[in-house]
Amino acid sequence: MPSFSPTPSDSPHRHTVFFVSDGTGITAETLGHSLLSQFEGIPLAQVRMPFVDSDAKAAACVAQINAAGRRDGHRPVVISTLVNPQTAKILHGANALILDFFGAFIAPLEAEFGMKSSHTIGRSHSGVNSSEYVARIDAINFTLAHDDGISSAGLDKSDVILVGVSRSGKTPTSLYLAIQYGIRVANYPLIPEDFERNKLPDGLSKHRHKLFGLTIDPERLSTIRQERLPDSKYASPENCRWEIDQAQKLMRREGISWLESTSKSIEEIGATLLQSLNIDRRTC
Amino acid sequence: MPSFSPTPSDSPHRHTVFFVSDGTGITAETLGHSLLSQFEGIPLAQVRMPFVDSDAKAAACVAQINAAGRRDGHRPVVISTLVNPQTAKILHGANALILDFFGAFIAPLEAEFGMKSSHTIGRSHSGVNSSEYVARIDAINFTLAHDDGISSAGLDKSDVILVGVSRSGKTPTSLYLAIQYGIRVANYPLIPEDFERNKLPDGLSKHRHKLFGLTIDPERLSTIRQERLPDSKYASPENCRWEIDQAQKLMRREGISWLESTSKSIEEIGATLLQSLNIDRRTC
Repeated sequence: MPSFSPTPSDSPHRHTVFFVSDGTGITAETLGHSLLSQFEGIPLAQVRMPFVDSDAKAAACVAQINAAGRRDGHRPVVISTLVNPQTAKILHGANALILDFFGAFIAPLEAEFGMKSSHTIGRSHSGVNSSEYVARIDAINFTLAHDDGISSAGLDKSDVILVGVSRSGKTPTSLYLAIQYGIRVANYPLIPEDFERNKLPDGLSKHRHKLFGLTIDPERLSTIRQERLPDSKYASPENCRWEIDQAQKLMRREGISWLESTSKSIEEIGATLLQSLNIDRRTC
Repeated sequence: MPSFSPTPSDSPHRHTVFFVSDGTGITAETLGHSLLSQFEGIPLAQVRMPFVDSDAKAAACVAQINAAGRRDGHRPVVISTLVNPQTAKILHGANALILDFFGAFIAPLEAEFGMKSSHTIGRSHSGVNSSEYVARIDAINFTLAHDDGISSAGLDKSDVILVGVSRSGKTPTSLYLAIQYGIRVANYPLIPEDFERNKLPDGLSKHRHKLFGLTIDPERLSTIRQERLPDSKYASPENCRWEIDQAQKLMRREGISWLESTSKSIEEIGATLLQSLNIDRRTC
């Protein structure tokens, strides 16, 4: 992650980075963070400028960018996803290094597709009345209603069912998949009773093709559980080792793909899971 | 949103779009969807290729891209965020329109900062042991534990408290803010008892500076509530109009900023809320 200072300071070496967008600015931020993460050690302050959708707002942006440059002692970096050519032109009047994302890539795509782009603002996220957006909100609600084995009703409608011992990362991963990809995720804890019965929780076997496991390093699991229930059997290193060992045996026997979550972010787990289960993204 | 077909078809006019990345591919997808949303009507099929982190995987990518081009009858579009110059060079051997994100933007940044980029893979999302990532997972857990007024304990630790009538969009917005921005969000329903008592729910007044309201068109609210509890007073248009009217009066009197969520996505609500409350993003 780039070393953004949380609040603009007056460091003389600092570069201010502006994320400028006609819409929410999420694309500009995602792109900017990807690029800037390659320059570790450069002190950066970030300024988000979403909804720059008029000439007046673009002119106000330019003034703010130029002021930051004078304060920093060198010109700012501007990551722009402005779609409107007129506001983009105004922005280019700023004294800054302007990385103009549409400027760079729209022309080759227009040539490739043999058509002009629509220059429509805010189209990269589906409208709230689109079937994609409705499905995404439904996925969030479904995932919440099927967190931690709360309900086994409607599992037929799930896209993925995550299984794993308590605190192996199922809930954050489930919510991330629902919000980012519009995927309906249920998650089920594997508990000592499952290991003693030596079978999957009731109702899961018939959904085996949707099951995906998360496992975690036992020492890390013990640390996480200690924060929740200190000095408990639940959190003890011996019990964590036993549960992880049992869970892996169960998943291996049932033919369930799984992933070790210890050193993986929810983004990495999500991308791996989609690839492994070959699920199409429903939405952007 | 681009008109991706959910599964690759054999349409002769279709263009296949590949999202190629050394990491999760999220940046490539975000970038690609933003660009391609400008070309409505072009039939597209998408192929995600995350974790392309070796020469062999890059070569396999090239083979898959070329095969898609032969099948489609014209060359595919490749959106690449490959950081490694060696794998990027292999990818450039494909018969495709390659939009190379790092290739386009790293050089001007290197010149600006007077240093070479690190060419480090997967740095745009913080590592799982970084304080940013830990804070983000904490935010997700906090937000879940403070959904729908479940707990008023620990509100001191919240960054934002969303208020609004039942089904005004508080829960999806809260989870989105936690996952995307690492912000700790509590949300509280405004219920008829609050309107009758003519004051905020207990314990919220002292956090007034963190409060943000969501409101919604009463007709839309009635439709949403009908799906949940058909033919109830709760879902009736009259009751929905009354609740929205009362909630707006209460928020106005208490000086709470609010947003009409009816036609806004969670991304748009999130970006507006951050701007309005002037909250710094904790994480990327």
